[in-house]
Order: sequence, then C-alpha cells, then structure tokens
Amino acid sequence: MRKLKMGMVGGGQGAFIGHIHRMAIALNGEIQLVCGVFSKDAAVSRASGRELGLAPSRCYDGYREMLATEASLPAGERIDLVAIVTPNASHFEIARMALQYGFHVMCEKPLTLTLAEARELRALAARHERQFAVAHAYAGYPMVVQARQLVSDGAIGTVQKVVVDYVQGWLAEAVLAQRPQSQSQTENWRLDPAQGGAAGCLGDIAIHAAHLAELVSGQAISTVLADLASIGQGRQLDDDVAILLRFGNGARGMLNASQVCVGEENHLTLRVYGSQGSLHWAQQAPDTLALDRAGQPRLSLSSGQPYLCDAARAMGRTPSGHPQGYIEAFANLYRWFYHSMCGTGSTDALPGMAAGVRGMAFIEAALRSNAQGNRWAAIEAEVAA
Amino acid sequence: MRKLKMGMVGGGQGAFIGHIHRMAIALNGEIQLVCGVFSKDAAVSRASGRELGLAPSRCYDGYREMLATEASLPAGERIDLVAIVTPNASHFEIARMALQYGFHVMCEKPLTLTLAEARELRALAARHERQFAVAHAYAGYPMVVQARQLVSDGAIGTVQKVVVDYVQGWLAEAVLAQRPQSQSQTENWRLDPAQGGAAGCLGDIAIHAAHLAELVSGQAISTVLADLASIGQGRQLDDDVAILLRFGNGARGMLNASQVCVGEENHLTLRVYGSQGSLHWAQQAPDTLALDRAGQPRLSLSSGQPYLCDAARAMGRTPSGHPQGYIEAFANLYRWFYHSMCGTGSTDALPGMAAGVRGMAFIEAALRSNAQGNRWAAIEAEVAA
Amino acid sequence: MRKLKMGMVGGGQGAFIGHIHRMAIALNGEIQLVCGVFSKDAAVSRASGRELGLAPSRCYDGYREMLATEASLPAGERIDLVAIVTPNASHFEIARMALQYGFHVMCEKPLTLTLAEARELRALAARHERQFAVAHAYAGYPMVVQARQLVSDGAIGTVQKVVVDYVQGWLAEAVLAQRPQSQSQTENWRLDPAQGGAAGCLGDIAIHAAHLAELVSGQAISTVLADLASIGQGRQLDDDVAILLRFGNGARGMLNASQVCVGEENHLTLRVYGSQGSLHWAQQAPDTLALDRAGQPRLSLSSGQPYLCDAARAMGRTPSGHPQGYIEAFANLYRWFYHSMCGTGSTDALPGMAAGVRGMAFIEAALRSNAQGNRWAAIEAEVAA
Amino acid sequence: MRKLKMGMVGGGQGAFIGHIHRMAIALNGEIQLVCGVFSKDAAVSRASGRELGLAPSRCYDGYREMLATEASLPAGERIDLVAIVTPNASHFEIARMALQYGFHVMCEKPLTLTLAEARELRALAARHERQFAVAHAYAGYPMVVQARQLVSDGAIGTVQKVVVDYVQGWLAEAVLAQRPQSQSQTENWRLDPAQGGAAGCLGDIAIHAAHLAELVSGQAISTVLADLASIGQGRQLDDDVAILLRFGNGARGMLNASQVCVGEENHLTLRVYGSQGSLHWAQQAPDTLALDRAGQPRLSLSSGQPYLCDAARAMGRTPSGHPQGYIEAFANLYRWFYHSMCGTGSTDALPGMAAGVRGMAFIEAALRSNAQGNRWAAIEAEVAA
Repeated sequence: MRKLKMGMVGGGQGAFIGHIHRMAIALNGEIQLVCGVFSKDAAVSRASGRELGLAPSRCYDGYREMLATEASLPAGERIDLVAIVTPNASHFEIARMALQYGFHVMCEKPLTLTLAEARELRALAARHERQFAVAHAYAGYPMVVQARQLVSDGAIGTVQKVVVDYVQGWLAEAVLAQRPQSQSQTENWRLDPAQGGAAGCLGDIAIHAAHLAELVSGQAISTVLADLASIGQGRQLDDDVAILLRFGNGARGMLNASQVCVGEENHLTLRVYGSQGSLHWAQQAPDTLALDRAGQPRLSLSSGQPYLCDAARAMGRTPSGHPQGYIEAFANLYRWFYHSMCGTGSTDALPGMAAGVRGMAFIEAALRSNAQGNRWAAIEAEVAA
Repeated sequence: MRKLKMGMVGGGQGAFIGHIHRMAIALNGEIQLVCGVFSKDAAVSRASGRELGLAPSRCYDGYREMLATEASLPAGERIDLVAIVTPNASHFEIARMALQYGFHVMCEKPLTLTLAEARELRALAARHERQFAVAHAYAGYPMVVQARQLVSDGAIGTVQKVVVDYVQGWLAEAVLAQRPQSQSQTENWRLDPAQGGAAGCLGDIAIHAAHLAELVSGQAISTVLADLASIGQGRQLDDDVAILLRFGNGARGMLNASQVCVGEENHLTLRVYGSQGSLHWAQQAPDTLALDRAGQPRLSLSSGQPYLCDAARAMGRTPSGHPQGYIEAFANLYRWFYHSMCGTGSTDALPGMAAGVRGMAFIEAALRSNAQGNRWAAIEAEVAA
Repeated sequence: MRKLKMGMVGGGQGAFIGHIHRMAIALNGEIQLVCGVFSKDAAVSRASGRELGLAPSRCYDGYREMLATEASLPAGERIDLVAIVTPNASHFEIARMALQYGFHVMCEKPLTLTLAEARELRALAARHERQFAVAHAYAGYPMVVQARQLVSDGAIGTVQKVVVDYVQGWLAEAVLAQRPQSQSQTENWRLDPAQGGAAGCLGDIAIHAAHLAELVSGQAISTVLADLASIGQGRQLDDDVAILLRFGNGARGMLNASQVCVGEENHLTLRVYGSQGSLHWAQQAPDTLALDRAGQPRLSLSSGQPYLCDAARAMGRTPSGHPQGYIEAFANLYRWFYHSMCGTGSTDALPGMAAGVRGMAFIEAALRSNAQGNRWAAIEAEVAA
Repeated sequence: MRKLKMGMVGGGQGAFIGHIHRMAIALNGEIQLVCGVFSKDAAVSRASGRELGLAPSRCYDGYREMLATEASLPAGERIDLVAIVTPNASHFEIARMALQYGFHVMCEKPLTLTLAEARELRALAARHERQFAVAHAYAGYPMVVQARQLVSDGAIGTVQKVVVDYVQGWLAEAVLAQRPQSQSQTENWRLDPAQGGAAGCLGDIAIHAAHLAELVSGQAISTVLADLASIGQGRQLDDDVAILLRFGNGARGMLNASQVCVGEENHLTLRVYGSQGSLHWAQQAPDTLALDRAGQPRLSLSSGQPYLCDAARAMGRTPSGHPQGYIEAFANLYRWFYHSMCGTGSTDALPGMAAGVRGMAFIEAALRSNAQGNRWAAIEAEVAA
C-alpha cells in the first residue's frame, strides 16, 4: 500500500472541520498529513502545525508559499494532495493554485462563491488531470450507499417524491447562550458574506441535503422554488431555508434546512418515495435504513450485515451492532478518494467535481428563486446534463 | 349526567369513519346513537341501522325524512345532534338542514365544498344558536393539547417555524394491490370531484395538518404557496401536496401531505420551533411529546403524568404507560362537544365552526396558489381575523 | 346480535380497573352494564351506580344480594355475567357464588389468594358449565396474537429463550410525592396482605408477564427460581421480582418485574428467541412487532396491515397508523369472551380458567422458591399438564 | 505531545479486535504501532506487519523474541507498551513477560484464565510500577461516563436495582449460515476451552456487562446466582447466561447475556434504578442517555452538549448530532491510558488492573454458582475490597 502525503490549508486550533479531516485520514492510514497552513496568523499556524507533530520546515506561513515549496520538492517527498478547509471565500483561489501546481484537491463545500468559479475549477482539474473531491461527508455512510443501490436496483420503483430535512439549532442557541455564535471564533465567518458568500444556511447545510437527495434518488434536481429567511436578529445571510424541488424525471421534493431550530443538533433525514416502496434514513441513527415495500412489513437494514450490497459492506469497519459515526463516514470519503488518486478503483458515490459544480448551481438557482419572489428557477442546464 | 341523543348521516357497513364516531361516543357514554341514515340505498341503510341495534322506526330512508321526523318528536325523545359522516359534497346541505331544524352538528372535514358554503353555515349556526364541531380528531390527543398549552405559556418563546407532515400510502398501495382504491367502496368517492370536491389529498388530510399547525402554534396561517400533484395515473384530484406557509406573526412553515407515499400508514408529525425551544409530536406515538429548550436536555413528556396541564390530564383515560389511541382522541372531541352542547364547559381546543371555515379558506387559497403557478395566495382576510 | 347483561362487583369512584372494564364493554357494544355493587360502603356504591346511569333498583348494597336478586329475575332481564374487579382477597368468594348462581365470570387477576381456591373455582365452573375469563389484558393486543401465531407457525424455529420485563415506578413515586401510595385509596390494598394476598408485585404484574411469556412462546413454564424483595420502607409484600425460568421444552427465561423502578410507567416488553429468529414487542408501542430471522433485515409488522394473520386483523378497530391502545386490548378480551359466552366462536388466546389456575401455581412456586433461599421450584405438575 | 510506541501481540489478517485497537490509536495520534507479532504462523505474522507498514526488522516471529528484542533497544526507540489481542489462554504469559520487561500493557478481556493468574499479574504490575489497562471498551462512551457521574452526584438517589442486557446472535447465525462459527477463523477459539478458558459467553461478553454495571452504578457486585447454558449443539462452553446479582450496598440486579439470540447484533443495554430516579443507556444508540427523576418528564442527554460533565465533554470528538461510535469509544480508552502512562492525568473510569482482577473473580463466582446448581456464590472478598 502506497501512502499519500497531504497538505492542509485551514483547520487550526479550535476549528471543527479540519480536525475531522485529520481524524478521517488517520483512521484510514492511507494518507499522511505532512504539511499545512492552519491559520492566517503565521504564529498560530506554526503552533498548530507543531502541535500536530509536523516538521517545522513544513509548517508554512501561507498557502502560496506552501504550494510553491511543496511543488519544488522531489517526487515521493512532496505532497500528493491538498485539503482545503478554509472559509468559503478562499476555496477558489487555493484550489485553483493547487491544481495548477499539479496537486489533487479535497475541498470543503460549498466549492466556491459562484458557479462561474466552480466551472473554472472544473476546467482546470480536467486540464491538469487531477482528482478533485468535495467533502459531502454524508455520502460516506454505508447505509446511504445501500439506499442508493436499492433505488438503482429498482427496489422502490420509480422515484416520485423526495423529502429531505437538515435542521440545526446552534445559530440560535449560541445567541441565547450569549456565546460568540459558536464554540469557536472560526465559525463566525459563516455569518459574514465576505467570507462565507451570498448563501448562509443554504451554502452550509442545504447544499448537503440537496446533494444527498440527488445521490440517493439517482435523479438530478432540475428546478427549485426557494424561500429563504434571516431569522436571527441583524443577520445578513439566510439562516432558514424552505425549498420545493422538481427532479429531472418529474419527481417532486421538499427540502427543509435551518440553523435556528432550537434543540436540533444535526438532524438530517432523507425519505425517498417511489412507485413501489420507500426508503427512510436519519443521520443521527446512521447504521440503519428502513425500506418499505407496498403491502409488506417494514424492513430495517443494518450496517455490517451480510445482506448489504458489496459497496456498503466494504465501507464497514466494525461488526454489526458496533456503531459507526461521522468520522468513519468522512474516512470512507477519503478512502474512496485515495483509491481514485492511486488509480486503484473509484466509485461514482464519491462527491467529485461534478457534485461541487452542481452544488454551486443549486445555490445560485435558490438565491435567484428567492430574489424573484419565490418563483421556480432552473438549475443551469449544462450543469444538470 | 344528562345523556344526549344523536342521529347519524352516512357511515354504513364498510365505512371507516362512521364506525369511529360511534365507538367514540360509546367510549364516553354521554351521547347515544338513536337514529340514522347510513346509506343512499335505503335497504342498506336500514340493515346497517338494525345491526347497530336501532329501533326500526328510527332507521330512516333519507336525511330529509330523518331530520323532519326527529324534529317533530317531543323534546327528550328527539335527537339533540346530528353527526355527518357522508362524502364531502353532501355536508353542506345536510348541515344546513340540521341547523335549520335546530340540531347541533358534528361534521366531518372538509366542512363543505366551498368557502362560501362554509360561511353560510357559520351564519346559520349563529342565527340558530347551535353548536357546531368539525372532526379534526387529532386535536383530541392529550399531548396535542399539552403542546398547545406549552406554546401558549411561552415555553418555546416566539414561534418561528412550523413543520408539519401528513403522509399516507394507501392510495398508491391500493392500486398496487389491485384493490378498488381502498378497503371499502365508500372511500372511492375521495377520488371523484363530484363527491369529494376540488381538493383531493388537500381536503382529506392536508387540512388536518394545517389545522393542527394552527392549533398548537397559536398562530393563523396567513398565506400559502402550494404545489399540488396528481401522481396516481388517471387521477383528477391532487394526491400529493407541498405547501410553504406564512403565519400571522411572520413565522414560516412547511406542510407536506401525500397519499401516495408507499409504506406510510398515517404519518402525521408536527414540529414547532420557537425562539427559545421547540416541540415535536408524532401521531403514531401519540402519548409522548418532546420539548427542547436551548442548552438543555430534551424533555419527553408523557400522557397521564401529574406534571401535565389540567386540560391534558383531564383527557387521559388510562394511567401513564397504558397507551391511548385514535378512538380515545376522537372521544375527547365528542366529550368537549358534549359539554359545549350541555353548556357545562367548553374549550377553544374544540374545532368548531371557525375551524371549519378556516379549513375551507385554506383549501381555496391552496388551490388558487397552485392554479396561479405556485404563487403566494392569502387566506381570506375576514376569516383569518 | 344479542346483547348480554353484566353486573359488576367493585370498581367504584376513583378505582382504576373497573372503569377500564366499563369502557371496554362500551367500545364493543355487545355487553351492557345493568347492575353492580361498586363499594363496600353501600352509599358510595349506590352513588357510583347512579353516576353510571344504572336503574336504582339494580344498584345493590352487597354482592350476595346482587347475585341472589339477579338470579331471581326472569331470563332476558337478569344478568348473564359478573365482572369481578375487587381487591384480590374477595375474588374467590364472589366468583364461587356467581358460578353457583349460574353466571359467567370475568375476574381480575390474580384469580384467588391460593392455588387451592383456584382449583376449586375450576371445578365449579366445569360443574356449572359456565365460561370464565381472567383479565390478562395484554393478550388482547393484536400484535401479541400475531406474535403467538408466528411462533406457532415456526417463524422463529424452536423457542430457546424468553426475556420478559414488566417494570413500573408508581409504588416508589407515590412515596416520593408523599401521595397515599397511589392516586386513589382503592389501590392501597395492594400493599396489604390481608386484601392483596401473599404476593405483591408478583401477583400484580409479574403474573401478567408470566402469562404473556407462555401465551406467545406456546411453552409452559415448568420451574422458577425467584428472588423477591421489598424495597419500599416498611413494606410487607414484595415490590421487586427477579425470576429465572425453565419452560417445558427446556427453553430458558428471565422475568423482571418491579413497581419501584422510578421513571418507568408500564414498561412491559417481551422478547422470544428461537433457533431461527426472534420476536420483540413492547406494550408502550403496541402497534408494532419486530421479527428477526437469521441473516435477514429486521421486519417491523404493524397493526391493521393485510399481511397479518386473520386473528390479529380481526382485532383491529382502526386503519393502520391510527394507534390503538390499552382500552382496545381490553375490549378485545371482552369480545372474545362475548363470543365464548354466546357460543359463536372462541379462541384459546382468551385467558380463561386454565390461565387463572396457572397464574396461582406460578405465584405459589415463586413464593416457595424465594422462601427456600432462591431454589428452583416446580410449577404444580397437574396444572402444567 | 510525546508520542508513545506500541507493540501488538495478535490481531493479524482477519482478526476483528486487533484492527479496532489499531484504528483507535490512529484516531488519537498519541500512540504509534511500531512492531508486532500478529500470528502464531511467522509468515502470516510478517505479512500482516508489512501490510501495516511496519519496518521488517520489527515484524517478529514470536512474542518472546519481540519483548526481548524491544527491551534491548535504546530508550526512545523501544516500545513503551504492548497491546495483547490474542486468544484468552495466552494473555497471562504474554502480559507477565511484558511487565517483567518493563512495558505497560493494554490487554483484552478476560484478563487471564483464572483468578489466581490475574492476582499474579496484579502483583507484578505493582512491583514493576507499570500501567495496565483492560479493554472494556464500553467504558469509553461519553454517555457511560456521564451516567456514572450522575449516579455519583446522587441524581438518582441510592442505587436499588441494575438491569444489564448483552445479547448477540452471531454464534447461532453462523451455524445457520453454515459459516465456520464466524467470519474469521480467529474467532473460532472462543468455542475451544483450551484457548478461551472455562467461560464462553460469560467470559466474552457477560464480563463486559458486569463491568459496565459496576462502573456506572458505583457499586461492586458481591454475590451472583448464575444459570449457564450451552444452547448450540455440541458446544463445550456456555453460550447463554442468566445471572441474578447482589451489590455491596444491597442493591439487586439481573444480568442477561447470550450469543445465540438470533437477530441481535450487539445489544448491550443498561438500566440503573435508584431511589429518586433512573438511567437508561443502549450501546447501539450510544450518543444519548435517558434520565428519569420521580415525577418529572424524562430527560434525554446527548453527546457533545455543554450541559454534560467535564469528563464526558472531553471525550467528544464531534459536535452534537454527529454520531460517534465504537471506535471512538475504544480510542477514548487509549487516550486515558496514554495519559496514565505519561503521568499527565488519569481517570478511575479507565478499566485497569483492578477491573481485570474483578472480571476474573466474577467469572469464577458465576462458574461456581452454576456448578453448585444455581446457588449464590460470593465474589472473592479481598477482590471486592
């Protein structure tokens, strides 16, 4: 097994998602973090790097320096990929440069600030023949892959309706607790359009919900009718999202996302209704998947069981009944990406560049729909193709 | 305790809801069924009446005959109220006549075929000073009343978002099983605009969901943006409903209703999110109610417990842990109505004429919104007042 | 449909179980309460009777008077059956006399104070050819009957292990709340050996658990090893029960029962493990039944569905997804009993005299086991036969 | 942060638990696997080592060689600790030698084959002043630690009853599927007394249940009454366990463990009932903990929330609502052990030598109780002290 080397941009002390990326690759043991820029503040960045056990020479002051220096190292020593876990506004520039230097990229969502930028990255990745993944971690749960397989196998017939819910309460609870909007300063940027972009909750979690709905249903969202709200006082960005959906095959959908639903933790649930049956999955109980078929008792499929499809079985790390969670899902994403970079296998369940571009098209369509007074807005056609 | 006498129109052999009404009053023991017209077919009607143990002289051939004859009986012998459990199209005429003869009315939803008819009934009931109830049975669950009280007490702060889901699968499963759309012929009328009216799933169950959302949140829906579909082949009426909501206080909502969600039985769930907390209730596990408050563990309140509000406690018929269900909820509605007719107490939790009229205004607004290409449509203002 | 007439002994104002019996027969509409003695205090008894709408002439001062008087009434007017809902100590004498007068009997559990008394009743009922039922209400849940059918059909192979849990908290919570041990005075007798007998929690709820375990598994308990405790201060009777079980076919079991488990409401759960699969049922979510078969996804069967066995389907009163509860289960018991009395059908799922006698044999064996220092004690052999 | 070096004995290709240990330390990043003996077959062992990326010079042929060679390496290069993940029979000898060479030890349960051996290890560890941990992984779930803290804080009053259930189906399902008793050859040893010892299910999972019951309740089990069975055909060891418990403070308990409960995956649940409240935890939904207090709604505490105790909060790796599972629990054990070895903090929640010795005393008492015809048997007194 060849071990790949990774550099990270973002994810310093106190950040949530950078730490998750690092635990995910550690769990797999296939990719090693060897360098990084963990903060805009060079001192903080270097302190973070040291704490992570990196060689001081590979704790960089900025991503430009990191990418240039690493690219100049001999093959076998230099990094193979870059993980981008910075606030949204810098994704594009870092990803662009990483691709240009010939590195593969694992990027946080949303991919960029605009659809145009996303397309540019797509062109760049194609030109440089680099692998690109977007961190839609929920795709990495075994039962999500099982659900997708079941739909694809026709277990529920033709998809007719998709209901996806992704609600959290932390943006309200932080205010109530008079905390600085979150445990860590680094998450404050989500409320700042300059750093987070024009989409708030929409770009932070509704985009996950949309991706999950498409992934499992096997259908692309064609048009959206979005109703966005800023419920938190003085907020510039949406923190509450309601969207009606139409899919390519004519199926309908509802997408509910919010970050001001007090009491909700990370309530992501998906229901896919077909002409012959339906599927029900909830992220907070990820090891089971309910399958209804007309006129029959509900089936509850469970992670780790021999009756699962090959892909779902391969994603399990523990015997059935030993819970697996979010870090394991994230690690499955990295494992897929590892094989994709090594050329030792790939899966179209891995959210790649196409998913990243679609995510931006989804955001732009939703913003457009909302701005036009909640009218149907099409997802850009060439993207949907 | 004075026992009231009831006549029933509809609900003959094989009908679902008439039987529920009869079990509900039997459970209470406060109202006695003494006469009825149970079918358009006089022979069937009389057979049903005999089977129910009614005196042959009070098994009528038609509702006009029944109302006229009963009205001519001496006080103390004649009926006090009429239960209307016929297909929607006849509600108006029967209710109108019942009121004119001076009877109280318990009517199935939707109240009428049009908002205009509903208003006419409202005027009639006021003129004749008769009590009128609409069978929104879900209001009769103790934990629904508890939820309403908690919102009203400020336990979750200002209501900001309401998510209500009411999905069933029987209209799809009946087709798949090649059954005549349902167990009984009598339900076929729901698919026939001449009998059911212009609203399908909308008038059958979405109207329940809307009522429940308003009842618990204490907020009136002001405008709707509805997306209706007829998914079942050859259907004239909607069988799938997605609605965005705005409430009087500015709160937002989503209403999902469908009768073609294979595998769903009677999945009615309500979530009310406020500025300080949230409430979660599911009809298929009706004895518990979850309450989240910012920064605190979730509370699960349970039917029959001393910490419930007086009204919810009074609705319990069994000690905690001994499940109560749909019939008991229905019976609670009838108990409220009994006291309202006797003048021995009343509750604004009882869905009365106002709820019936609002239901029709909701339906008309949703149909209008859908017809206009999914634009926001206001619930009639004087109704909302 | 012939309507039967019932007299009740016990169950006056404030009593819990008498009210349940009355609601159960009202729900069915097959049996009518026409007379009763509701309290030892004649004034209270008559007041209760009037409140229930009984004719004053049939509100009796004592059960001897009631039975003698009713027996002297003409056929068609006199009662057909007696429901005994008094404290345990009087079951035997009332049942004996009722049988001697030729009435059928529905009796609360435990049947008597001793096994010898139970046998005497058995002989009497046989001699007088009267029907006799014991109120093991949990047998009346549709999914319990479905579970029994599945075991009987071999769906889980040979039964190997049975785990039954029946825990409540009210005897501890009443003390903590400084309430008189319960909501109503009438339940105090459970703590008094003179009224309740030698078994406390054992005779009150463990006996239900044992009955349910035998009913569903289709196996008789042959020996028990019981460990009884009186955890509440100053209590003479057991309030906590742990029993190891052996069944006739060699299967093993564990029975846990307690009334001092703070927080538990009426937590009755049953798991039956067989050589090929297993069944899981919980009384507080009675409408579903989980079935595991080796190597397959868990099935969740649901009340009201067409795939259930005939007997379970026949017990449903509402469409699937409309919860049914404890009163409905109780009503199913009465319906079975009604048909058994009318000779219009019977089911061995109805807990009859054999179940009553077995219950007393179980209690005596458990008391003996505990008294002998937790040694295995056999259930009386001729009873088990 | 100082990184410690670990050697592993056992856990080669196909083994379940060795892989879990390795993922756990990888997740933490505090301990590095640098050497090992992964199989009795030297070729397999070396192949496993290479696959794990170890230096060939540190892939040993046997544990004696490994321990001797590592001990001879310079400090800073040689291992700090040994993880023992072999079949039970070899734990003692390997642990003994590891301690004698001055290494810390993380050992799988049960610690040894006999209580006498366990005591000898205890003496050795004390003499050599080495840290010793036993892999009772369930102690590493945040909500288990929270539960323990709540009991210790008096949240449920005096512990009165403990009910613990640990049931699996794999030993039955493997037979049914005609698989060699398990996915991998390495698990076959559990059925062989020569390798697994005199306890089957008792030593494999009942020991976990007993440990968990003591850990959370804060009470030591003083006596047991055990009923062991070998349900699988031709089995020499118990595969089904029922035990009545008495705790030091007089509390009672029931322990149910089985590996032939078809359909159960890894169903470990704990209920602790106290005089004022109760706690409920289920391993297959590990992120929540239910707390009942007399007369109040049930509380559901959730992983990652600010209201948890410091220790439980410190164990979280993801924000609330992002599930954590078995590997994370295991990693928490290793993290505690890491700090204990480094002298940078310790917790008595870490299952150490005392837990290991108590586990053996529990096994011996249960075997004795069963052999004596299900009589109460005391846990060795000096151990309980």
